[in-house]
Amino acid sequence: MKRTLGVCYYPEHWLETQWADDAARMIEAGLTWVRIGEFAWQRIEPSRGQFAWDWLDRAVQTLGAAGLKIIMGTPTATPPRWLVDEMPDMLPVDTDGRVRKFGSRRHYDFSHQGYRTECRRIAGAMGERYGKNPHIAAWQIDNEYDCHDTTLSYSEAARAGFQDWCAQRYQSTDALNRAWGNVFWSMDYDRFDQIELPNLTVTEPNPAHVLAFRRYASDQVVAFNRIQADVLRKYTDAPLVHNYMGRITTFDHWAVGADLDIASWDSYPIGFLSDRIEGTPAEKQRFLRQGHPDNQAFHHDLYRAVGKGRMWVMEQQPGPVNWAPYNPAPLPGMARLWAWEAFAHGAETVCYFRWRQAPFAQEQMHAGLLRPDSADAPALAEARQVATELLDLPDVEAAASPVALIFDYESAWAWDTQPQGADFDMFRLAFAAYRALRRAGLSIDILPPDVSDLGGYKLVLAPGLMRLSDPVRAALSTFEGTALIGPRTDTKTDELSIPTPMGPNLPDVDITAALTESIPPTDEIALQDGGRFLHWFEHLEGKAEVFRRTQAGFPAIMGNVHLRYLGGWPDDETFDQIIRALCDEAGITTHDLPDGLRVRDTGTHRFVFNYAPEPLTWRGATIPPAGVHWEPLG
Amino acid sequence: MKRTLGVCYYPEHWLETQWADDAARMIEAGLTWVRIGEFAWQRIEPSRGQFAWDWLDRAVQTLGAAGLKIIMGTPTATPPRWLVDEMPDMLPVDTDGRVRKFGSRRHYDFSHQGYRTECRRIAGAMGERYGKNPHIAAWQIDNEYDCHDTTLSYSEAARAGFQDWCAQRYQSTDALNRAWGNVFWSMDYDRFDQIELPNLTVTEPNPAHVLAFRRYASDQVVAFNRIQADVLRKYTDAPLVHNYMGRITTFDHWAVGADLDIASWDSYPIGFLSDRIEGTPAEKQRFLRQGHPDNQAFHHDLYRAVGKGRMWVMEQQPGPVNWAPYNPAPLPGMARLWAWEAFAHGAETVCYFRWRQAPFAQEQMHAGLLRPDSADAPALAEARQVATELLDLPDVEAAASPVALIFDYESAWAWDTQPQGADFDMFRLAFAAYRALRRAGLSIDILPPDVSDLGGYKLVLAPGLMRLSDPVRAALSTFEGTALIGPRTDTKTDELSIPTPMGPNLPDVDITAALTESIPPTDEIALQDGGRFLHWFEHLEGKAEVFRRTQAGFPAIMGNVHLRYLGGWPDDETFDQIIRALCDEAGITTHDLPDGLRVRDTGTHRFVFNYAPEPLTWRGATIPPAGVHWEPLG
Amino acid sequence: MKRTLGVCYYPEHWLETQWADDAARMIEAGLTWVRIGEFAWQRIEPSRGQFAWDWLDRAVQTLGAAGLKIIMGTPTATPPRWLVDEMPDMLPVDTDGRVRKFGSRRHYDFSHQGYRTECRRIAGAMGERYGKNPHIAAWQIDNEYDCHDTTLSYSEAARAGFQDWCAQRYQSTDALNRAWGNVFWSMDYDRFDQIELPNLTVTEPNPAHVLAFRRYASDQVVAFNRIQADVLRKYTDAPLVHNYMGRITTFDHWAVGADLDIASWDSYPIGFLSDRIEGTPAEKQRFLRQGHPDNQAFHHDLYRAVGKGRMWVMEQQPGPVNWAPYNPAPLPGMARLWAWEAFAHGAETVCYFRWRQAPFAQEQMHAGLLRPDSADAPALAEARQVATELLDLPDVEAAASPVALIFDYESAWAWDTQPQGADFDMFRLAFAAYRALRRAGLSIDILPPDVSDLGGYKLVLAPGLMRLSDPVRAALSTFEGTALIGPRTDTKTDELSIPTPMGPNLPDVDITAALTESIPPTDEIALQDGGRFLHWFEHLEGKAEVFRRTQAGFPAIMGNVHLRYLGGWPDDETFDQIIRALCDEAGITTHDLPDGLRVRDTGTHRFVFNYAPEPLTWRGATIPPAGVHWEPLG
Ligand SMILES: [Zn+2]
Ligand SMILES: [Zn+2]
Ligand SMILES: [Zn+2]
Repeated sequence: MKRTLGVCYYPEHWLETQWADDAARMIEAGLTWVRIGEFAWQRIEPSRGQFAWDWLDRAVQTLGAAGLKIIMGTPTATPPRWLVDEMPDMLPVDTDGRVRKFGSRRHYDFSHQGYRTECRRIAGAMGERYGKNPHIAAWQIDNEYDCHDTTLSYSEAARAGFQDWCAQRYQSTDALNRAWGNVFWSMDYDRFDQIELPNLTVTEPNPAHVLAFRRYASDQVVAFNRIQADVLRKYTDAPLVHNYMGRITTFDHWAVGADLDIASWDSYPIGFLSDRIEGTPAEKQRFLRQGHPDNQAFHHDLYRAVGKGRMWVMEQQPGPVNWAPYNPAPLPGMARLWAWEAFAHGAETVCYFRWRQAPFAQEQMHAGLLRPDSADAPALAEARQVATELLDLPDVEAAASPVALIFDYESAWAWDTQPQGADFDMFRLAFAAYRALRRAGLSIDILPPDVSDLGGYKLVLAPGLMRLSDPVRAALSTFEGTALIGPRTDTKTDELSIPTPMGPNLPDVDITAALTESIPPTDEIALQDGGRFLHWFEHLEGKAEVFRRTQAGFPAIMGNVHLRYLGGWPDDETFDQIIRALCDEAGITTHDLPDGLRVRDTGTHRFVFNYAPEPLTWRGATIPPAGVHWEPLG
Repeated sequence: MKRTLGVCYYPEHWLETQWADDAARMIEAGLTWVRIGEFAWQRIEPSRGQFAWDWLDRAVQTLGAAGLKIIMGTPTATPPRWLVDEMPDMLPVDTDGRVRKFGSRRHYDFSHQGYRTECRRIAGAMGERYGKNPHIAAWQIDNEYDCHDTTLSYSEAARAGFQDWCAQRYQSTDALNRAWGNVFWSMDYDRFDQIELPNLTVTEPNPAHVLAFRRYASDQVVAFNRIQADVLRKYTDAPLVHNYMGRITTFDHWAVGADLDIASWDSYPIGFLSDRIEGTPAEKQRFLRQGHPDNQAFHHDLYRAVGKGRMWVMEQQPGPVNWAPYNPAPLPGMARLWAWEAFAHGAETVCYFRWRQAPFAQEQMHAGLLRPDSADAPALAEARQVATELLDLPDVEAAASPVALIFDYESAWAWDTQPQGADFDMFRLAFAAYRALRRAGLSIDILPPDVSDLGGYKLVLAPGLMRLSDPVRAALSTFEGTALIGPRTDTKTDELSIPTPMGPNLPDVDITAALTESIPPTDEIALQDGGRFLHWFEHLEGKAEVFRRTQAGFPAIMGNVHLRYLGGWPDDETFDQIIRALCDEAGITTHDLPDGLRVRDTGTHRFVFNYAPEPLTWRGATIPPAGVHWEPLG
Repeated sequence: MKRTLGVCYYPEHWLETQWADDAARMIEAGLTWVRIGEFAWQRIEPSRGQFAWDWLDRAVQTLGAAGLKIIMGTPTATPPRWLVDEMPDMLPVDTDGRVRKFGSRRHYDFSHQGYRTECRRIAGAMGERYGKNPHIAAWQIDNEYDCHDTTLSYSEAARAGFQDWCAQRYQSTDALNRAWGNVFWSMDYDRFDQIELPNLTVTEPNPAHVLAFRRYASDQVVAFNRIQADVLRKYTDAPLVHNYMGRITTFDHWAVGADLDIASWDSYPIGFLSDRIEGTPAEKQRFLRQGHPDNQAFHHDLYRAVGKGRMWVMEQQPGPVNWAPYNPAPLPGMARLWAWEAFAHGAETVCYFRWRQAPFAQEQMHAGLLRPDSADAPALAEARQVATELLDLPDVEAAASPVALIFDYESAWAWDTQPQGADFDMFRLAFAAYRALRRAGLSIDILPPDVSDLGGYKLVLAPGLMRLSDPVRAALSTFEGTALIGPRTDTKTDELSIPTPMGPNLPDVDITAALTESIPPTDEIALQDGGRFLHWFEHLEGKAEVFRRTQAGFPAIMGNVHLRYLGGWPDDETFDQIIRALCDEAGITTHDLPDGLRVRDTGTHRFVFNYAPEPLTWRGATIPPAGVHWEPLG
């Protein structure tokens, strides 16, 4: 499949007289797609039932006539004022019990049944009007679920919904009390309507209570999305997509993705480096204008799997954004590099956000492909270059990766709930493992926690899974490659308690994590032959072979030839040692890459990206900063 | 005019038998003024309509008879409990929606109409009683507007007032929706009563919405002050004054000052260095017991302009205060130095706060001129020395400054609303420019944003003005000196959006700030020939001459012989280079001052102040720490 | 008296079939005591008035029959859901005005009269049933008062109670207004029901108001405890005990202790080092797995005094806990060392918390003597070793200490209310003094603020007492040893104002603290002959002899041969100099101890503890890390 570019556009922001010229310039720049509509509810329905389709009809016609394919967004992330006036209890409530008011976006509660009905209504109305329109080639549902921490709401609607969810899951309060261990502090319930949301308790609430609420909240996102997906499918055969964000773990993207055709995401490499990626100040400074060299790759690989193979970038940062603590400009070339990195990971389409920088409102300092005065912004030329390069380059199909990493949202909720050490975070751990793989020059697949087939992989990592699912456990029992499991994997029950026998429960491997320690930043667990664990250390016991020990003589890695359990959180250097040693064992070729160079193989080509601010060398070729190099796979 | 000293005094805190002795000691110390009354509402009116004037009559008589001139304060910063009981909705509400309770001071909402009526009533009653009293030589209205963050309140009263203000300003919601760009996220309103205050939104509210609220809130302070000014003028011809605080930008001091006769301020050099001035730990340690060497000067110059030439220090720190995170004692001599710095900047009067340290309540650890046991505190001797020196020294009239800096409150609100970089702050930027001027030994005028006459200035700085006012733009078009404009000046419309054509729009100078970047503390933009920008960088384009470039070749300063636009935020060393080069061009003499030495010219004398903790040298003369040196000009 | 060990046990957490085996293993390990019941209200009384005694009867019987002595806890720290449903206003309210919800523990307001009645009822019912049971050898009332910041509540119940308390204390609002200095900012009250709780005021409330509320809140804890003590004494002759926590100063432990027979406390050396003890990162890293070498000692000595000579450790950390920011495992041997340190300080009993690690709920990551799967956890062997050693060792009676330190809770409230410097804290100051004594190898007594007999002590320290009580002042007037008083001692009145004459008011010693400074961390006051003050410095005046001066020549220590006033807060090294010099004067032998070695004398033996992570030497003997050494006192 040929890869394509696109852009996000808001016809309602501009004079209608400008639309045709904008469309022509998009085509001229080589863009294929234009996304519209996702914040326009008020302009589509200025008051209840009074639809103003005319302008949107003309916008669709103008863009489509210019040759653009349209992604139509449902506008449910921005319910209009009149709707909030009708049902003010649709507003979400924060963890401190404060209502989160109208005046920006995402001001709705996923649990609110009335709002769900409204979303079915507006999505249905749009589907009915545009479902068969030949210019509409895809549909986006809502926008960036959980952005601004909106998955979790502590409203009355959420409380009632959670109580009902508990009743359905546990059937009796006796069962719930037993499952949660409510005997612990006389926390037993007699009736489901006594169960409150787990905020504002005197000290920490029961972790099983919190995990239940996190599951409930994720289920509401899935249900909310499904309602729109269901109603749209009545009217259209075009693919349905949602645009996920980066490092959001509050809902189960695998479950949302199951109801959609394509997974897209919004890639803001510089903003994300600044506001949601761990790193030393020196690392953050080194990649300040490029973004973290592995963060885009991780999310591409994750969402390619969430999308069952179909992945887009729906919003690609083109210049400075407005929302990070600091917003520097990308290094020249990065708007091109980021697009190529996406394609190399299997993206079908990369849409820049946005066409013209808005001169007003919240994002007026967010760059676009055009300046507010319609002059070219720097990224437009880079987009045009990518469009030209795409004409020549063979299709960039995703390659079969020798290596996989299992990623699980439920585990993120579990460790949020019970981190045990202040810096223990599921994404951070999984990303640490992923980064080590990528520093070794590997191309990686990310797999869901219920994957049942590990065939084809030589190396599989499963860090931090609170429990191994039955399919994974079964797949591991016959796995012919090498699996590196842990730390903290398979050490909890489904209700976030400690199982007996204690975990991990690996097929044919006798290991028990007898005691666990969280380690402050001042401390480390030194390993024999160099290396160290940070953050986390498990005292492993059992009859399994010890592959590596701490300097104090405790097991650090135990297992057998196929299954290894990692009893701590290695620092980067140690993770590199471990991964390279396992790759050597598994017959996987690794690369020694200078700091900032990254490699990604596709079906036919090897791509090399230079994220460093200085030129780097790949097999004799000098790649400038922000440079992209590709060569046929041989 | 001869300069004078004074002191703040609370007769209600002490036995009446002590008043005469206190008054005699004030006179003996050389004090001219005594401020009273400003927190005494409950003692003046213990219950509604029951006035207890007798004690205050006697206090006025006793102080006046001793030869003191009285500044009478209206007590509206401390409404009594019975009044709050009558109308509990007069209490302000914080940004989290919590009522700010009775129990300290400033517990009122500027928007509350009922409280305004009460303030008119009590100020009128005081005016009626003392307006013609020969001992009352000035009136202070309220106390320290905005102290404890009281300009912004999120109450029902504020909401209703803001909706009405919006209706008056915009006349229709259509106009408001267009002005604010509410189309952006379907934020349009149908009725003014739908507009909420911009707190507790899900993510950031529309910046135009916030700026409107900031304007509204400032207007309420102006209106609140005007009510008391109007009623007092019915009864008195004495000058009206308010005591502003340091680094408060939440209301337009220019507008409040327009209704008053004198601008005074409360100068706490050590407290302010600690709690509201940026600085490295080393700088803060160096000036720990002296205060920032430029902060008092800045505010003297600012309030001299706000007072249309008449400026007082109403409260001068005399020793340790109680309210900063740490409260060390001033270096011996500072209570004298601070007074002389004020006089050198044109202060008519410096009143120390307070006469005797209160042994009780919130400020019991705040030093006075007397100890709680009535013994002399260290500052009394220093005040006495200043009083003696004033007898001998020629009048210290303000000199004509060759240099001016334009300072604008609205821009502070704009950049608070939309900082774009976490450390971008209007005061900080203006103060950085001011400090560079002062390090060059210059005496500076501060000008309002609508100044129409720049004649007489050789150098004018206009950093960070969100837009140039029409008068300033006109004045610049014929300006014969050198103006240094920017960074971030004239880049927004009146509604905090980006204009087309994009700014800055300078007369006869073609410059466009095409793209702006905020820079984290780890990064900098290096300039050619040394120097660097921090915090902020604008990509300048246009046909204007480039005077300076970044190492990467981008313009750093552009313009023509009279108007220069500065495209970034220079660090101190670079600001020094820039200012000194411009002064050389403009024929302004600068000085090389050792770290901590500062110069201020008056009409007849040059004053030199040593803020350093070690002796410093000025033209052969050694000035001890906290030393003040003066020499005839010319 | 022979010392004993015990353990905390929750029969309701386990199958009844397991109880007998658990009891047998406890006996086998050498344990004497088992604490039960304190969180089991819901299991004892599943709904109002329906008592389910049967299981608890059988648990008591099973444990008692095995030979264990039982400590029975009243379950009032965990009121069941049905009780909260009956009176939801029993929930506490936090300082932000938010109700603290059901879902964990300690969800009650000490001020709530209805809940007090319920506590009397449940404690009475338990007393009636088990008061004469031969297996019940002690009673614990509630659990860890103030844990999770529960002393202070801002509820309606607290407000009403506080108003009543004020009415009783002051009798008239006139008296209250005068006592608090409410004239200061027109804060006078006309009626007691106008007095609100001192939270959410616009700026800081009157410190006298806050101190009154702190006194009120402490009184409620005392009253709450007394209700249960009174009702239990109707039914039992067994000793009554409460388990205090570490570094909790929000209520007067002396006053609570007066109603009880034994003071016990819950000792979590590693958790406390992490979450409530000041220290540099290097210090915290050095003692990461051992706990602060003086913190346990301080609390042993404090609670031995609170218990009028009888002190227990009710909960002893046995391994990693779950609640600190990071939770590493103790160094092998520490579970033994901590027990011996407790015995050396006079503990009668040390109970480990808990028997078996719970696999569910909030504390599932908190280690026990057994693992969740019932295997031995590391601490079980250490407990067994202590039990064995106790068989051989002569009784470890507390020795007469030559040195004492006076510790006062009211002063902690005073300095919380009015710290003046951000890092001034009563516990921190007292602990700094205590640590210096302990680094000198001394065994210390801690004394209450109303101690009237200082006979037998050669050196007494009285740091940070807001006022000297009459008994202490009287005792000092005839004291034959040396007292080191200050800093900040006797400088306030009973109502937290400044007395005239200003303090300190020492018998026959003329000293006035004329001016006080708080010092930021970047600054210090250097002393002559080396040494320095941090945090705090008082300008001392008067005719008393000056024993030490600052480099600037100000007095640092003044007084006479018996009474010395210390005008600042010495750093550790300076405190060491001062203490050692005073000990030399007083004829007290001090020791030079390597960093981490600590000494404690009992009546017959000297104990030496190695808290360091490396071996240390004591008089030729090498003591390994976590080692305990004892030798007969000669
Ligand atoms: Zn977006
Ligand atoms: Zn003031
Ligand atoms: Zn406990």
